[in-house]
Amino acid sequence: MYIVLVYDVSQEENGARRWSRIFKICKKYLTHIQNSVFEGELSKGQLAQLQKELKEYIDKELDSVIIFKSRQEKWLDKEFWGRKDDLTSFIL
Amino acid sequence: MYIVLVYDVSQEENGARRWSRIFKICKKYLTHIQNSVFEGELSKGQLAQLQKELKEYIDKELDSVIIFKSRQEKWLDKEFWGRKDDLTSFIL
Repeated sequence: MYIVLVYDVSQEENGARRWSRIFKICKKYLTHIQNSVFEGELSKGQLAQLQKELKEYIDKELDSVIIFKSRQEKWLDKEFWGRKDDLTSFIL
Repeated sequence: MYIVLVYDVSQEENGARRWSRIFKICKKYLTHIQNSVFEGELSKGQLAQLQKELKEYIDKELDSVIIFKSRQEKWLDKEFWGRKDDLTSFIL
């Protein structure tokens, strides 16, 4: 299925480290399209694995991760208003 | 159609002011679900109007706005991993 993942990691409680961990885990499974936004095609098993890995780092009181799932990518159109690039090289 | 809007506003060139303007415009049309993420049901006309309003403030070199469009909300499942709340009251 086609996944869009957006995350917001609090800066509290060593947030920069959590942000970096979460970024790296997402990058293993998905394509980075905006500062804290990833997308990609995952199987149910891969999504479950991603969730398992992320749950070790997400602070349930402070951080937010939202997953949008569409059975097919074609059901979801995408438009860029403004800058469009892969920021990975600036971040890692 | 059902819209998910995610934005990333650079802190450069008076970014905090742009961020706040963009936030307020999005809030007029959509529901705030995460720091820089909005969702909602819009007509084509409303989406065009939102784009027109945002274009006045988006810096095309610095800022990124991504729009995901689905013809029907039911084609897009949503999951929250971690915190789930409306942050508006903390921001405005």
